[in-house]
Amino acid sequence: MVERLTSPANPTLKRIRSLREKKFRRTEGLFLAEGLRIVAEAVEAGVVPEMLVFADDAAAHPLVERLVAITEAAGGHAIETDRAMLHKLTEKDNPQAVVGVFRQHLTPLDRLDRSLAPIWIVAQALKDPGNLGTILRTGDAVGAGGVILLDDGCDPFSVEAVRASMGAVFTQALVQTSGAAFFDWVRQGPGQVVGASLDTATDFRRVAYAAPVFVLMGNEQAGLPPEYEAQCDALAKLPMRGKADSLNVAVATAVLLYEVLRQVEG
Amino acid sequence: MVERLTSPANPTLKRIRSLREKKFRRTEGLFLAEGLRIVAEAVEAGVVPEMLVFADDAAAHPLVERLVAITEAAGGHAIETDRAMLHKLTEKDNPQAVVGVFRQHLTPLDRLDRSLAPIWIVAQALKDPGNLGTILRTGDAVGAGGVILLDDGCDPFSVEAVRASMGAVFTQALVQTSGAAFFDWVRQGPGQVVGASLDTATDFRRVAYAAPVFVLMGNEQAGLPPEYEAQCDALAKLPMRGKADSLNVAVATAVLLYEVLRQVEG
Repeated sequence: MVERLTSPANPTLKRIRSLREKKFRRTEGLFLAEGLRIVAEAVEAGVVPEMLVFADDAAAHPLVERLVAITEAAGGHAIETDRAMLHKLTEKDNPQAVVGVFRQHLTPLDRLDRSLAPIWIVAQALKDPGNLGTILRTGDAVGAGGVILLDDGCDPFSVEAVRASMGAVFTQALVQTSGAAFFDWVRQGPGQVVGASLDTATDFRRVAYAAPVFVLMGNEQAGLPPEYEAQCDALAKLPMRGKADSLNVAVATAVLLYEVLRQVEG
Repeated sequence: MVERLTSPANPTLKRIRSLREKKFRRTEGLFLAEGLRIVAEAVEAGVVPEMLVFADDAAAHPLVERLVAITEAAGGHAIETDRAMLHKLTEKDNPQAVVGVFRQHLTPLDRLDRSLAPIWIVAQALKDPGNLGTILRTGDAVGAGGVILLDDGCDPFSVEAVRASMGAVFTQALVQTSGAAFFDWVRQGPGQVVGASLDTATDFRRVAYAAPVFVLMGNEQAGLPPEYEAQCDALAKLPMRGKADSLNVAVATAVLLYEVLRQVEG
Protein backbone atom coordinates (compact mmCIF):
# COMPACT_ATOMS: atom_id res chain seq x y z
CA MET A 1 0.00 0.00 0.00
CA VAL A 2 1.34 3.40 -0.94
CA GLU A 3 2.10 5.57 2.04
CA ARG A 4 1.99 9.35 1.84
CA LEU A 5 4.84 11.04 3.73
CA THR A 6 5.70 14.71 3.42
CA SER A 7 7.07 15.85 6.77
CA PRO A 8 10.81 16.56 6.87
CA ALA A 9 10.70 15.18 10.40
CA ASN A 10 9.45 11.79 9.23
CA PRO A 11 12.04 9.17 10.24
CA THR A 12 11.76 7.19 7.00
CA LEU A 13 12.33 10.28 4.87
CA LYS A 14 15.19 11.35 7.13
CA ARG A 15 16.73 7.92 6.74
CA ILE A 16 16.43 8.09 2.96
CA ARG A 17 17.95 11.54 2.90
CA SER A 18 20.86 10.36 5.05
CA LEU A 19 21.89 8.02 2.21
CA ARG A 20 23.45 11.00 0.46
CA GLU A 21 26.28 10.52 2.98
CA LYS A 22 28.77 7.70 2.70
CA LYS A 23 28.73 6.72 6.37
CA PHE A 24 24.99 6.12 6.31
CA ARG A 25 25.20 4.28 2.99
CA ARG A 26 27.80 2.04 4.57
CA THR A 27 25.87 1.28 7.75
CA GLU A 28 22.55 0.80 5.91
CA GLY A 29 23.97 -1.05 2.89
CA LEU A 30 21.64 1.01 0.73
CA PHE A 31 22.00 3.74 -1.89
CA LEU A 32 19.94 6.24 -3.88
CA ALA A 33 19.21 6.39 -7.58
CA GLU A 34 17.44 9.50 -8.80
CA GLY A 35 15.15 9.79 -11.78
CA LEU A 36 12.54 7.79 -13.61
CA ARG A 37 14.92 6.68 -16.32
CA ILE A 38 17.58 5.21 -14.05
CA VAL A 39 15.08 3.51 -11.73
CA ALA A 40 13.36 2.03 -14.78
CA GLU A 41 16.73 0.77 -16.04
CA ALA A 42 17.34 -0.86 -12.68
CA VAL A 43 14.02 -2.68 -12.86
CA GLU A 44 14.79 -3.61 -16.46
CA ALA A 45 18.02 -5.17 -15.19
CA GLY A 46 16.04 -7.11 -12.58
CA VAL A 47 16.92 -4.90 -9.63
CA VAL A 48 13.88 -3.71 -7.70
CA PRO A 49 14.09 -0.80 -5.23
CA GLU A 50 13.51 -1.48 -1.55
CA MET A 51 11.84 1.90 -1.36
CA LEU A 52 10.42 4.05 -4.11
CA VAL A 53 9.68 7.71 -3.44
CA PHE A 54 7.64 9.57 -6.05
CA ALA A 55 6.11 13.02 -6.48
CA ASP A 56 2.33 13.19 -6.04
CA ASP A 57 2.04 15.18 -9.26
CA ALA A 58 3.67 12.26 -11.12
CA ALA A 59 1.57 9.51 -9.52
CA ALA A 60 -0.57 9.10 -12.64
CA HIS A 61 2.44 8.71 -14.97
CA PRO A 62 2.12 5.17 -16.42
CA LEU A 63 5.80 4.37 -15.78
CA VAL A 64 5.55 5.59 -12.17
CA GLU A 65 2.45 3.45 -11.69
CA ARG A 66 4.33 0.47 -13.10
CA LEU A 67 7.36 1.05 -10.85
CA VAL A 68 5.09 1.37 -7.80
CA ALA A 69 3.39 -1.92 -8.68
CA ILE A 70 6.72 -3.72 -9.23
CA THR A 71 8.18 -2.33 -6.01
CA GLU A 72 5.18 -3.41 -3.95
CA ALA A 73 4.95 -6.82 -5.61
CA ALA A 74 8.54 -7.46 -4.53
CA GLY A 75 7.76 -6.46 -0.95
CA GLY A 76 9.19 -2.95 -1.26
CA HIS A 77 7.84 0.25 0.17
CA ALA A 78 6.22 2.87 -2.11
CA ILE A 79 6.10 6.40 -0.74
CA GLU A 80 4.22 9.31 -2.24
CA THR A 81 5.55 12.73 -1.34
CA ASP A 82 5.49 16.32 -2.59
CA ARG A 83 7.96 18.32 -4.66
CA ALA A 84 9.20 20.24 -1.63
CA MET A 85 10.29 16.98 -0.01
CA LEU A 86 11.88 15.71 -3.25
CA HIS A 87 13.77 18.96 -3.43
CA LYS A 88 15.15 18.16 0.04
CA LEU A 89 15.90 14.52 -0.79
CA THR A 90 17.75 15.30 -4.01
CA GLU A 91 19.21 18.72 -3.10
CA LYS A 92 18.13 19.91 -6.51
CA ASP A 93 16.13 22.93 -7.60
CA ASN A 94 14.24 20.86 -10.13
CA PRO A 95 14.13 17.44 -8.51
CA GLN A 96 13.43 14.28 -10.43
CA ALA A 97 9.94 12.84 -9.91
CA VAL A 98 11.27 9.54 -8.55
CA VAL A 99 13.97 8.39 -6.16
CA GLY A 100 14.73 4.72 -5.66
CA VAL A 101 16.44 3.25 -2.61
CA PHE A 102 18.43 0.15 -3.57
CA ARG A 103 20.43 -2.50 -1.76
CA GLN A 104 24.18 -2.23 -2.43
CA HIS A 105 25.29 -5.18 -4.53
CA LEU A 106 29.00 -5.86 -4.27
CA THR A 107 30.22 -9.17 -5.66
CA PRO A 108 32.88 -10.93 -3.58
CA LEU A 109 35.99 -11.39 -5.73
CA ASP A 110 35.97 -15.18 -5.32
CA ARG A 111 32.42 -15.32 -6.65
CA LEU A 112 33.18 -13.34 -9.78
CA ASP A 113 32.82 -15.49 -12.91
CA ARG A 114 35.35 -14.12 -15.37
CA SER A 115 33.97 -16.29 -18.16
CA LEU A 116 30.81 -14.17 -18.28
CA ALA A 117 32.41 -11.38 -20.30
CA PRO A 118 35.42 -10.82 -22.58
CA ILE A 119 36.35 -7.52 -20.91
CA TRP A 120 36.72 -6.48 -17.28
CA ILE A 121 37.70 -3.08 -15.95
CA VAL A 122 39.99 -2.75 -12.96
CA ALA A 123 40.25 0.72 -11.41
CA GLN A 124 42.77 1.55 -8.74
CA ALA A 125 42.10 4.19 -6.08
CA LEU A 126 39.84 6.35 -8.21
CA LYS A 127 39.00 9.60 -6.45
CA ASP A 128 36.23 11.13 -8.53
CA PRO A 129 32.79 9.48 -8.41
CA GLY A 130 31.84 11.13 -11.70
CA ASN A 131 34.78 9.38 -13.35
CA LEU A 132 33.80 6.05 -11.80
CA GLY A 133 30.19 6.42 -12.92
CA THR A 134 31.30 7.33 -16.44
CA ILE A 135 33.59 4.27 -16.50
CA LEU A 136 30.65 2.06 -15.46
CA ARG A 137 28.57 3.56 -18.28
CA THR A 138 31.35 2.87 -20.80
CA GLY A 139 31.73 -0.64 -19.38
CA ASP A 140 28.09 -1.32 -20.17
CA ALA A 141 28.52 0.11 -23.69
CA VAL A 142 31.44 -2.19 -24.56
CA GLY A 143 29.82 -5.25 -22.98
CA ALA A 144 32.26 -5.46 -20.09
CA GLY A 145 31.33 -7.68 -17.17
CA GLY A 146 31.99 -5.21 -14.44
CA VAL A 147 34.42 -3.02 -12.56
CA ILE A 148 36.86 -4.30 -9.95
CA LEU A 149 37.79 -1.48 -7.60
CA LEU A 150 41.23 -1.75 -6.02
CA ASP A 151 42.37 -0.13 -2.80
CA ASP A 152 40.81 2.99 -1.30
CA GLY A 153 38.75 4.96 -3.73
CA CYS A 154 35.48 6.75 -4.13
CA ASP A 155 32.15 5.10 -3.43
CA PRO A 156 30.46 3.52 -6.48
CA PHE A 157 27.14 4.01 -4.70
CA SER A 158 27.49 7.77 -4.21
CA VAL A 159 24.79 9.87 -5.81
CA GLU A 160 27.33 11.33 -8.30
CA ALA A 161 28.65 7.93 -9.38
CA VAL A 162 25.18 6.46 -9.77
CA ARG A 163 24.04 9.48 -11.79
CA ALA A 164 27.07 9.43 -14.10
CA SER A 165 26.63 5.67 -14.62
CA MET A 166 23.22 6.30 -16.22
CA GLY A 167 21.98 2.95 -14.93
CA ALA A 168 25.14 0.94 -15.56
CA VAL A 169 25.64 0.63 -11.80
CA PHE A 170 22.84 -1.95 -12.05
CA THR A 171 24.20 -3.88 -15.03
CA GLN A 172 27.92 -3.99 -14.25
CA ALA A 173 29.25 -6.30 -11.53
CA LEU A 174 31.07 -4.38 -8.81
CA VAL A 175 33.92 -5.79 -6.73
CA GLN A 176 35.91 -4.02 -4.02
CA THR A 177 39.24 -5.53 -3.10
CA SER A 178 42.97 -4.87 -2.70
CA GLY A 179 45.57 -4.91 -5.43
CA ALA A 180 47.28 -7.90 -3.83
CA ALA A 181 44.05 -9.90 -3.62
CA PHE A 182 43.19 -9.03 -7.22
CA PHE A 183 46.53 -10.21 -8.62
CA ASP A 184 46.32 -13.42 -6.54
CA TRP A 185 42.84 -14.11 -7.87
CA VAL A 186 43.43 -13.19 -11.49
CA ARG A 187 46.41 -15.56 -11.76
CA GLN A 188 44.25 -18.50 -10.68
CA GLY A 189 42.49 -18.55 -14.04
CA PRO A 190 42.75 -17.39 -17.62
CA GLY A 191 43.09 -13.71 -18.27
CA GLN A 192 45.37 -11.01 -19.58
CA VAL A 193 46.07 -8.00 -17.39
CA VAL A 194 46.80 -4.83 -19.37
CA GLY A 195 47.72 -1.65 -17.53
CA ALA A 196 47.28 1.84 -18.91
CA SER A 197 50.58 3.61 -18.44
CA LEU A 198 52.70 6.50 -19.54
CA ASP A 199 55.79 4.46 -18.60
CA THR A 200 55.84 2.39 -21.75
CA ALA A 201 56.56 2.97 -25.41
CA THR A 202 53.88 0.49 -26.49
CA ASP A 203 51.00 2.14 -28.33
CA PHE A 204 47.70 0.73 -27.07
CA ARG A 205 46.87 -0.52 -30.56
CA ARG A 206 50.01 -2.64 -30.76
CA VAL A 207 49.02 -4.78 -27.80
CA ALA A 208 47.39 -8.09 -28.80
CA TYR A 209 44.38 -8.37 -26.53
CA ALA A 210 42.97 -11.81 -25.74
CA ALA A 211 39.79 -12.37 -23.74
CA PRO A 212 39.24 -12.23 -20.89
CA VAL A 213 41.11 -8.93 -20.78
CA PHE A 214 41.46 -7.09 -17.49
CA VAL A 215 42.05 -3.41 -18.28
CA LEU A 216 43.80 -1.82 -15.32
CA MET A 217 43.53 1.95 -14.80
CA GLY A 218 45.30 3.97 -12.11
CA ASN A 219 44.36 6.90 -9.94
CA GLU A 220 43.62 10.29 -11.54
CA GLN A 221 46.76 12.01 -10.26
CA ALA A 222 49.29 9.25 -9.72
CA GLY A 223 48.43 6.63 -12.32
CA LEU A 224 49.22 2.99 -11.49
CA PRO A 225 51.72 2.17 -8.75
CA PRO A 226 54.94 0.76 -10.28
CA GLU A 227 54.48 -2.54 -8.43
CA TYR A 228 51.10 -2.99 -10.13
CA GLU A 229 52.56 -2.16 -13.51
CA ALA A 230 55.23 -4.78 -12.90
CA GLN A 231 52.55 -7.46 -12.50
CA CYS A 232 50.72 -6.63 -15.73
CA ASP A 233 51.06 -8.86 -18.80
CA ALA A 234 51.34 -5.74 -20.94
CA LEU A 235 51.36 -1.98 -20.56
CA ALA A 236 49.59 0.20 -23.09
CA LYS A 237 50.08 3.88 -23.77
CA LEU A 238 47.73 6.28 -25.49
CA PRO A 239 49.53 8.58 -27.92
CA MET A 240 49.71 12.19 -26.77
CA ARG A 241 50.17 14.94 -29.32
CA GLY A 242 49.44 17.89 -27.07
CA LYS A 243 51.15 20.11 -24.59
CA ALA A 244 49.79 18.58 -21.41
CA ASP A 245 50.39 14.83 -21.81
CA SER A 246 47.27 13.94 -19.92
CA LEU A 247 43.78 12.59 -20.38
CA ASN A 248 40.81 12.30 -18.07
CA VAL A 249 40.85 8.75 -16.66
CA ALA A 250 37.32 7.91 -17.86
CA VAL A 251 38.29 9.10 -21.34
CA ALA A 252 41.50 7.06 -21.38
CA THR A 253 39.57 4.00 -20.18
CA ALA A 254 37.05 4.36 -23.00
CA VAL A 255 39.64 4.75 -25.75
CA LEU A 256 41.43 1.63 -24.51
CA LEU A 257 38.21 -0.36 -24.08
CA TYR A 258 37.06 0.34 -27.63
CA GLU A 259 40.34 -0.98 -28.99
CA VAL A 260 40.05 -4.08 -26.80
CA LEU A 261 36.47 -4.56 -28.00
CA ARG A 262 37.56 -4.28 -31.64
CA GLN A 263 40.21 -6.96 -31.16
CA VAL A 264 38.24 -9.42 -29.05
CA GLU A 265 35.34 -9.27 -31.50
CA GLY A 266 37.81 -9.88 -34.31
CA MET B 1 54.38 45.83 -6.95
CA VAL B 2 52.57 43.12 -5.06
CA GLU B 3 49.54 44.39 -3.20
CA ARG B 4 48.27 42.70 -0.07
CA LEU B 5 44.48 42.45 0.09
CA THR B 6 42.59 40.32 2.59
CA SER B 7 39.30 42.06 3.34
CA PRO B 8 36.20 40.39 1.91
CA ALA B 9 34.88 43.92 1.40
CA ASN B 10 37.76 44.87 -0.90
CA PRO B 11 36.29 45.80 -4.30
CA THR B 12 39.02 44.06 -6.31
CA LEU B 13 38.56 40.79 -4.42
CA LYS B 14 34.79 41.11 -4.72
CA ARG B 15 35.17 41.64 -8.44
CA ILE B 16 37.40 38.56 -8.76
CA ARG B 17 34.97 36.48 -6.77
CA SER B 18 32.08 37.63 -8.96
CA LEU B 19 33.76 35.88 -11.92
CA ARG B 20 32.40 32.59 -10.60
CA GLU B 21 29.10 33.77 -12.12
CA LYS B 22 28.50 33.76 -15.84
CA LYS B 23 26.90 37.21 -16.03
CA PHE B 24 29.96 38.86 -14.48
CA ARG B 25 32.32 36.82 -16.66
CA ARG B 26 30.39 38.05 -19.66
CA THR B 27 30.38 41.73 -18.71
CA GLU B 28 34.02 41.69 -17.60
CA GLY B 29 35.32 39.45 -20.39
CA LEU B 30 37.45 37.69 -17.78
CA PHE B 31 37.56 34.25 -16.16
CA LEU B 32 39.21 32.37 -13.33
CA ALA B 33 41.72 29.55 -13.40
CA GLU B 34 42.50 27.92 -10.06
CA GLY B 35 45.71 26.22 -9.09
CA LEU B 36 49.42 26.57 -9.61
CA ARG B 37 49.56 23.89 -12.27
CA ILE B 38 46.91 25.34 -14.55
CA VAL B 39 48.16 28.93 -14.20
CA ALA B 40 51.68 27.70 -14.98
CA GLU B 41 50.33 25.90 -18.07
CA ALA B 42 48.67 29.11 -19.19
CA VAL B 43 51.94 31.00 -18.90
CA GLU B 44 53.70 28.13 -20.68
CA ALA B 45 51.20 28.58 -23.52
CA GLY B 46 52.00 32.29 -23.60
CA VAL B 47 48.88 33.47 -21.79
CA VAL B 48 49.63 35.73 -18.82
CA PRO B 49 47.02 36.46 -16.14
CA GLU B 50 45.71 39.99 -15.78
CA MET B 51 45.55 39.37 -12.06
CA LEU B 52 47.29 36.75 -9.98
CA VAL B 53 46.05 36.05 -6.45
CA PHE B 54 48.27 33.93 -4.24
CA ALA B 55 48.34 32.72 -0.64
CA ASP B 56 50.84 34.46 1.63
CA ASP B 57 52.06 31.08 2.89
CA ALA B 58 52.98 30.14 -0.69
CA ALA B 59 54.72 33.43 -1.54
CA ALA B 60 58.17 31.86 -1.23
CA HIS B 61 57.36 28.97 -3.57
CA PRO B 62 59.74 29.40 -6.54
CA LEU B 63 56.96 28.82 -9.10
CA VAL B 64 54.72 31.37 -7.38
CA GLU B 65 57.59 33.86 -7.38
CA ARG B 66 58.10 33.24 -11.07
CA LEU B 67 54.39 33.66 -11.89
CA VAL B 68 54.30 36.92 -9.89
CA ALA B 69 57.30 38.22 -11.82
CA ILE B 70 55.82 37.23 -15.19
CA THR B 71 52.43 38.73 -14.32
CA GLU B 72 53.97 42.04 -13.24
CA ALA B 73 56.35 42.19 -16.19
CA ALA B 74 53.34 41.96 -18.49
CA GLY B 75 51.58 44.79 -16.66
CA GLY B 76 49.33 42.50 -14.60
CA HIS B 77 48.35 42.86 -10.99
CA ALA B 78 49.77 40.51 -8.33
CA ILE B 79 47.75 40.22 -5.13
CA GLU B 80 48.85 38.49 -1.96
CA THR B 81 46.05 37.28 0.28
CA ASP B 82 45.40 34.77 3.05
CA ARG B 83 43.94 31.27 3.02
CA ALA B 84 40.60 32.49 4.41
CA MET B 85 40.15 34.77 1.41
CA LEU B 86 41.24 32.04 -1.04
CA HIS B 87 38.67 29.78 0.59
CA LYS B 88 36.06 32.43 -0.26
CA LEU B 89 37.35 32.99 -3.79
CA THR B 90 37.42 29.31 -4.68
CA GLU B 91 34.53 28.07 -2.53
CA LYS B 92 36.73 25.17 -1.51
CA ASP B 93 37.68 23.80 1.89
CA ASN B 94 41.26 23.29 0.79
CA PRO B 95 41.76 26.09 -1.70
CA GLN B 96 44.53 26.11 -4.24
CA ALA B 97 47.40 28.49 -3.43
CA VAL B 98 46.95 30.47 -6.64
CA VAL B 99 44.07 31.89 -8.66
CA GLY B 100 44.66 33.55 -12.02
CA VAL B 101 42.28 36.01 -13.66
CA PHE B 102 42.50 35.75 -17.44
CA ARG B 103 41.05 37.59 -20.42
CA GLN B 104 38.51 35.47 -22.36
CA HIS B 105 39.98 34.56 -25.73
CA LEU B 106 37.34 33.62 -28.28
CA THR B 107 38.45 33.41 -31.89
CA PRO B 108 35.99 34.82 -34.46
CA LEU B 109 35.04 32.04 -36.88
CA ASP B 110 36.28 33.98 -39.92
CA ARG B 111 39.69 34.31 -38.32
CA LEU B 112 40.08 30.60 -37.60
CA ASP B 113 42.89 29.09 -39.69
CA ARG B 114 41.81 25.52 -40.35
CA SER B 115 45.20 24.65 -41.84
CA LEU B 116 46.79 24.89 -38.39
CA ALA B 117 45.62 21.43 -37.28
CA PRO B 118 44.43 18.17 -38.84
CA ILE B 119 41.54 17.81 -36.37
CA TRP B 120 38.90 20.21 -35.12
CA ILE B 121 36.13 19.50 -32.63
CA VAL B 122 32.66 20.94 -33.12
CA ALA B 123 30.29 20.66 -30.15
CA GLN B 124 26.64 21.53 -30.41
CA ALA B 125 24.67 22.88 -27.44
CA LEU B 126 26.69 21.10 -24.80
CA LYS B 127 25.11 21.50 -21.38
CA ASP B 128 27.72 20.21 -18.94
CA PRO B 129 30.84 22.35 -18.40
CA GLY B 130 32.71 19.30 -17.06
CA ASN B 131 32.10 17.55 -20.39
CA LEU B 132 33.26 20.60 -22.32
CA GLY B 133 36.42 20.90 -20.24
CA THR B 134 37.16 17.20 -20.68
CA ILE B 135 36.67 17.56 -24.45
CA LEU B 136 39.13 20.46 -24.49
CA ARG B 137 41.64 18.32 -22.59
CA THR B 138 41.22 15.47 -25.08
CA GLY B 139 41.51 17.96 -27.94
CA ASP B 140 44.91 19.00 -26.64
CA ALA B 141 45.95 15.34 -26.28
CA VAL B 142 45.14 14.46 -29.91
CA GLY B 143 46.65 17.66 -31.28
CA ALA B 144 43.34 19.18 -32.32
CA GLY B 145 43.32 22.88 -33.15
CA GLY B 146 40.36 23.84 -31.04
CA VAL B 147 36.70 23.53 -30.24
CA ILE B 148 33.95 25.27 -32.20
CA LEU B 149 30.89 25.67 -30.00
CA LEU B 150 27.58 25.75 -31.83
CA ASP B 151 24.35 27.29 -30.62
CA ASP B 152 23.49 27.82 -26.96
CA GLY B 153 25.59 25.79 -24.61
CA CYS B 154 27.57 25.97 -21.42
CA ASP B 155 30.30 28.52 -20.86
CA PRO B 156 33.83 27.32 -21.71
CA PHE B 157 35.15 29.86 -19.21
CA SER B 158 33.17 28.56 -16.23
CA VAL B 159 35.25 27.39 -13.30
CA GLU B 160 34.15 23.76 -13.90
CA ALA B 161 35.07 23.78 -17.59
CA VAL B 162 38.43 25.42 -16.96
CA ARG B 163 39.20 22.93 -14.19
CA ALA B 164 38.24 19.87 -16.26
CA SER B 165 40.29 21.20 -19.20
CA MET B 166 43.45 20.93 -17.10
CA GLY B 167 44.96 23.87 -18.95
CA ALA B 168 43.73 22.98 -22.43
CA VAL B 169 41.42 26.02 -22.34
CA PHE B 170 44.65 27.96 -22.98
CA THR B 171 46.01 25.80 -25.79
CA GLN B 172 42.85 25.06 -27.78
CA ALA B 173 41.26 27.75 -29.96
CA LEU B 174 37.67 28.48 -28.94
CA VAL B 175 34.96 29.68 -31.30
CA GLN B 176 31.33 30.39 -30.49
CA THR B 177 28.91 30.51 -33.40
CA SER B 178 25.67 29.12 -34.80
CA GLY B 179 25.23 25.89 -36.71
CA ALA B 180 24.23 27.80 -39.85
CA ALA B 181 27.29 30.05 -39.68
CA PHE B 182 29.56 27.06 -39.10
CA PHE B 183 28.30 25.10 -42.12
CA ASP B 184 28.57 28.23 -44.30
CA TRP B 185 32.14 28.77 -43.18
CA VAL B 186 33.32 25.18 -43.33
CA ARG B 187 32.16 24.83 -46.96
CA GLN B 188 34.31 27.77 -48.02
CA GLY B 189 37.47 25.72 -47.65
CA PRO B 190 38.78 22.18 -47.44
CA GLY B 191 37.46 19.97 -44.69
CA GLN B 192 35.45 16.87 -43.94
CA VAL B 193 32.58 17.15 -41.47
CA VAL B 194 31.88 13.91 -39.59
CA GLY B 195 28.97 13.74 -37.19
CA ALA B 196 28.71 11.32 -34.29
CA SER B 197 25.32 9.69 -34.56
CA LEU B 198 23.22 6.74 -33.52
CA ASP B 199 21.19 7.17 -36.73
CA THR B 200 23.67 5.42 -38.98
CA ALA B 201 24.92 1.90 -39.49
CA THR B 202 28.45 3.09 -40.25
CA ASP B 203 30.96 2.00 -37.62
CA PHE B 204 33.27 4.92 -36.78
CA ARG B 205 36.28 2.88 -37.91
CA ARG B 206 34.87 2.39 -41.41
CA VAL B 207 34.81 6.10 -42.14
CA ALA B 208 37.84 7.30 -44.14
CA TYR B 209 38.95 10.45 -42.37
CA ALA B 210 40.90 13.08 -44.29
CA ALA B 211 42.39 16.18 -42.69
CA PRO B 212 41.20 18.69 -41.81
CA VAL B 213 38.47 16.66 -40.10
CA PHE B 214 35.71 18.46 -38.23
CA VAL B 215 34.27 16.04 -35.66
CA LEU B 216 30.75 17.14 -34.82
CA MET B 217 29.22 16.09 -31.50
CA GLY B 218 25.66 16.76 -30.36
CA ASN B 219 24.06 17.71 -27.09
CA GLU B 220 24.17 15.25 -24.16
CA GLN B 221 20.46 14.36 -24.24
CA ALA B 222 19.35 15.00 -27.80
CA GLY B 223 22.41 14.27 -29.92
CA LEU B 224 22.78 16.17 -33.18
CA PRO B 225 19.73 17.83 -34.78
CA PRO B 226 18.71 15.91 -37.95
CA GLU B 227 19.32 19.00 -40.12
CA TYR B 228 22.93 19.09 -38.91
CA GLU B 229 23.38 15.38 -39.57
CA ALA B 230 22.07 15.96 -43.10
CA GLN B 231 24.87 18.45 -43.76
CA CYS B 232 27.67 16.15 -42.61
CA ASP B 233 29.96 14.43 -45.13
CA ALA B 234 29.71 11.26 -43.07
CA LEU B 235 28.03 9.98 -39.95
CA ALA B 236 29.89 7.68 -37.59
CA LYS B 237 28.49 5.38 -34.94
CA LEU B 238 30.24 3.89 -31.96
CA PRO B 239 29.35 0.22 -31.47
CA MET B 240 27.19 -0.42 -28.41
CA ARG B 241 27.18 -3.83 -26.81
CA GLY B 242 25.35 -2.93 -23.61
CA LYS B 243 21.87 -2.47 -22.32
CA ALA B 244 21.75 1.32 -22.32
CA ASP B 245 22.99 2.31 -25.79
CA SER B 246 24.62 5.43 -24.52
CA LEU B 247 27.99 6.95 -23.79
CA ASN B 248 29.05 10.12 -22.06
CA VAL B 249 29.62 12.74 -24.76
CA ALA B 250 33.21 13.47 -23.71
CA VAL B 251 33.93 9.74 -23.82
CA ALA B 252 32.37 9.31 -27.27
CA THR B 253 34.31 12.33 -28.53
CA ALA B 254 37.58 10.84 -27.32
CA VAL B 255 37.02 7.42 -28.86
CA LEU B 256 36.21 9.05 -32.20
CA LEU B 257 39.13 11.47 -32.01
CA TYR B 258 41.65 8.70 -31.38
CA GLU B 259 40.46 6.87 -34.49
CA VAL B 260 40.67 10.09 -36.52
CA LEU B 261 44.18 10.68 -35.15
CA ARG B 262 45.25 7.15 -36.11
CA GLN B 263 44.05 7.65 -39.68
CA VAL B 264 45.31 11.18 -40.29
CA GLU B 265 48.74 10.22 -38.97
CA GLY B 266 48.70 7.23 -41.31
